Amino acid sequence: MAQLRIALAQVNATVGDLAGNAGLVLDQARQAREAGAHVVVLPEMVLTGYPVEDLAPRESFARASREALGELAGRLGDQGCGDLAVVVGHLDRDEAGPRNAVAVLHGGKVVATQYKHHLPNYGVFDERRNFVPGDTLDIVRVHGVDVGLVICEDIWQEGGPIAALGEAGVDLVVSPNASPYERAKDDARLPLVARRAAEAGAPLVYVNLVGGQDDLVFDGDSMVVDAAGNLLARAPQFVEHLMVVDLETTARRATTAGRVGGFTVTRRVLDDQPLPAYEPAPAPIAGEPLDELAEMWAALVLGLRDYVRKNGFASVVLGLSGGIDSAVCAALAVDAIGAGNVHGVSMPSVYSSDHSRSDALDLAQRTGLHYEVQPIAEMVSVFTGQLGLTGLAEENVQARCRGVTLMGLSNQHGHLVLATGNKTELAVGYSTIYGDAVGGFAPIKDVPKTLVWELARWRNAQGDAPIPEASITKPPSAELRPDQLDTDSLPDYELLDQVLDDYVEGDLGYQALLAAGFAPELVDRVLRMVDAAEYKRRQYPPGTKISFRAFGRDRRLPITSAWREGK
Amino acid sequence: MAQLRIALAQVNATVGDLAGNAGLVLDQARQAREAGAHVVVLPEMVLTGYPVEDLAPRESFARASREALGELAGRLGDQGCGDLAVVVGHLDRDEAGPRNAVAVLHGGKVVATQYKHHLPNYGVFDERRNFVPGDTLDIVRVHGVDVGLVICEDIWQEGGPIAALGEAGVDLVVSPNASPYERAKDDARLPLVARRAAEAGAPLVYVNLVGGQDDLVFDGDSMVVDAAGNLLARAPQFVEHLMVVDLETTARRATTAGRVGGFTVTRRVLDDQPLPAYEPAPAPIAGEPLDELAEMWAALVLGLRDYVRKNGFASVVLGLSGGIDSAVCAALAVDAIGAGNVHGVSMPSVYSSDHSRSDALDLAQRTGLHYEVQPIAEMVSVFTGQLGLTGLAEENVQARCRGVTLMGLSNQHGHLVLATGNKTELAVGYSTIYGDAVGGFAPIKDVPKTLVWELARWRNAQGDAPIPEASITKPPSAELRPDQLDTDSLPDYELLDQVLDDYVEGDLGYQALLAAGFAPELVDRVLRMVDAAEYKRRQYPPGTKISFRAFGRDRRLPITSAWREGK
Repeated sequence: MAQLRIALAQVNATVGDLAGNAGLVLDQARQAREAGAHVVVLPEMVLTGYPVEDLAPRESFARASREALGELAGRLGDQGCGDLAVVVGHLDRDEAGPRNAVAVLHGGKVVATQYKHHLPNYGVFDERRNFVPGDTLDIVRVHGVDVGLVICEDIWQEGGPIAALGEAGVDLVVSPNASPYERAKDDARLPLVARRAAEAGAPLVYVNLVGGQDDLVFDGDSMVVDAAGNLLARAPQFVEHLMVVDLETTARRATTAGRVGGFTVTRRVLDDQPLPAYEPAPAPIAGEPLDELAEMWAALVLGLRDYVRKNGFASVVLGLSGGIDSAVCAALAVDAIGAGNVHGVSMPSVYSSDHSRSDALDLAQRTGLHYEVQPIAEMVSVFTGQLGLTGLAEENVQARCRGVTLMGLSNQHGHLVLATGNKTELAVGYSTIYGDAVGGFAPIKDVPKTLVWELARWRNAQGDAPIPEASITKPPSAELRPDQLDTDSLPDYELLDQVLDDYVEGDLGYQALLAAGFAPELVDRVLRMVDAAEYKRRQYPPGTKISFRAFGRDRRLPITSAWREGK
Repeated sequence: MAQLRIALAQVNATVGDLAGNAGLVLDQARQAREAGAHVVVLPEMVLTGYPVEDLAPRESFARASREALGELAGRLGDQGCGDLAVVVGHLDRDEAGPRNAVAVLHGGKVVATQYKHHLPNYGVFDERRNFVPGDTLDIVRVHGVDVGLVICEDIWQEGGPIAALGEAGVDLVVSPNASPYERAKDDARLPLVARRAAEAGAPLVYVNLVGGQDDLVFDGDSMVVDAAGNLLARAPQFVEHLMVVDLETTARRATTAGRVGGFTVTRRVLDDQPLPAYEPAPAPIAGEPLDELAEMWAALVLGLRDYVRKNGFASVVLGLSGGIDSAVCAALAVDAIGAGNVHGVSMPSVYSSDHSRSDALDLAQRTGLHYEVQPIAEMVSVFTGQLGLTGLAEENVQARCRGVTLMGLSNQHGHLVLATGNKTELAVGYSTIYGDAVGGFAPIKDVPKTLVWELARWRNAQGDAPIPEASITKPPSAELRPDQLDTDSLPDYELLDQVLDDYVEGDLGYQALLAAGFAPELVDRVLRMVDAAEYKRRQYPPGTKISFRAFGRDRRLPITSAWREGK
């Protein structure tokens, strides 16, 4: 047996910020060295951030990434971290094209490079577009322990690179990841990692990115399992964390190289001698994973915070209608960046109820956010009067005057505008383009209405209860005409969300929805609304970034599709 | 030698409209039969339209496509077209997943199916995401002539399926395509098709889709070359067209089947007997391809017309500022859907010049479009007064009041709003989100400013001169503050467009731009503007569909990228 102390550095990188990300690596390596670690593992593409999208094919960016990697190796050496093996994800490029790569830095130099084999090309991933796959496996011997490297998607492959590592013989598998949060994904990760460790016949160190990036949120959840698949240590979700774990493993001194299972295996020796025996530190206690609603709330808060911060904003502004959606968005914003940086604006029209104002004020008082009232009646009357707008056109002008108001305040004071629409109303088109859809970030765009209520109740049960009870319990209304209620236009939200989940997430067709027990009239009605909303959204894209796609996927239908689910 | 009369049916399919597209096929087949054709070839995925995007993985859609195909085969048989071999692109699906397929319909049945091998995954294409590649080659003998089938991207492969067909032995290659228009792409197509014919050792029939679909425009340009690569016939661009061509080819009666060049080759015989000799019809004379500006104008007109039509609109509304961009958009709209369906709105503010109104009126009178004046001074003053907006915030409110006005008229009267921004101003961020960026379709979003002027001069030279000379010659101004000129904020457009072309289209980095001879101050300034605009656009996506991406590609950078081109 041989010992090795591994540090798992679960950090929040920013796409494109090579200098800042290199600083993160250096800082983690120093802390790891102080903790006596021999190997420190950082996430996939930590040096460039993930996902790099169209930066991938840009030669000047790949060159900058390679230069930053070499410089980082030198600085690690200069700053006393040369004995540490530092595993760093980065963007590489060779004659074949851009590569999703990890390097091992040691002794001031890049001593090994491993390319990702399986490039995901589904859901939020576009890697087959952006990278060329590798077909080599670079095994590095550290203090007598043979360490194999596999990147993210490679560990989701049955009989893939990990099987080949197992066949070639390794004592430890190290896996840098950039695995986005999805509802209940953490429940799938541990069994997967355990299966792969068994396949490799070696312990597996899984390190994931953390933080919000564009429309993704990475949840961390880094972990170590032993060769039998037992969980040894697990990092918390949604926060940066350095976890140091002592491992006992084999030191088989395997020598198989060349072609194994379709891969070209090479071996490098950094240090052939196992470490003298030492007293292992106690394994960090893995806390219980968060329950489902707590996990979602944390994901929403982190996604919002990082979107605001990484886009260079310090504050946000949003409309407060007194309703549940804007109340939950405000509560998320307050949790993300502090009440002092959140500006709520009540924008009553002639159709606004008294409670819309009093509930908005109540929210402001509960949370301490900045609050102002900007009535829109006068703006609206100029447009409707001059242009002769009636009916739906008049309803929409109200929402658009609110959008212009928020953007005006944003331009004047530098706040990012939050759009407060939920996934259900966006799915069925119950919103106004350039109106309530205005905003740079839509915190609950991926949250169905019934889940908005659940999250509100969950958040209010955590002590300080930021959300007015009336906002949770009153019947939802857009208040764009007298006595309007959502139920005038939409089915009951419980039922609506069930149909939407099966139709959009579950990809069920018309017949399958009937077979699932939904009434034909309901299915007809909902499918017609969704398809019409798709049209409208494609004709006039809503002008907001989706928040992130963790609770399910978007439908990417063609704009002018004339095909409809039918009988 | 053997004879065969082939009909190339260059049609305008609509994504999702299975019934309508099947009707197109039936109609073309009847016309082809009346013209005495033996084979009729339709474009790639003609039955579903192209691109189907996220309809591809939807099982219910694949099932509908397969059912529509079977029904179409039956109707062809019923309507006297059973003797014709009809080559129809469609969406298929088997146990491996969705397939980009072509079928041969004959005798009322589907007699052969060929899957696409090379699935493009770059630029506007996402086929590796949406389809599973095939590895078979289905050769069909028609009147003694062995016909091989290859789909679109497959003919761009040196040594690919066509080489395998050549090795196996075919007398004719038929290629259904959905190849989007790009500037000067037609110059590349003929030599490519000629090379592939030589590789196959057989004539090649190339049939392309025509029409606008979402953000793409297909230009047609179908053609036939003989085995030596000589052009025999070429269809016009940008219009639907049925071209009937008599071919003389070999009838080698090759029998090679099984594995050839990595493909599984199967052979089917519809009819083993060569036709009795007949007098060939004269080859259709291929007109000269359009010159570059005529081709671009035609692409812009077709893209606009089909976007309006396929989205179910009959009319458009746009703001007329008296400037070149809105004048060119209006002229395109008039050419696309007729002046009677185009509504121009002059929306002067307190900063608008007299000529902005008179030039807009002049345009209206030259083209005969509907014209109205809606001053925005009163709307603007309510917002600026109530909210205390100054500087840039005040400038933006003017653009946004125009956006709300256009959307109000759209909602009231049912017009689609056109956004009039050009590619240069979008690249450098010289526009207002939710303001002049409002619209369902942006006809010149992909056209740099200098090309806007070129197109205007070209269009005015075609006889009726719709665009006021003053709109072409006066210095551009946004007129959002007193005496404002574009050159206050931007470099000279000639120089700016050169740098943008090299930076965005050419992917040149900072150093390469200096090496290309641009002054460092200019490069600094333009790159700073482009990167800032990227940020702004990602923070607040402009809410318009891009028109189409034929003149170059968009940059798809991550929203919060902190990486910048630097020294």
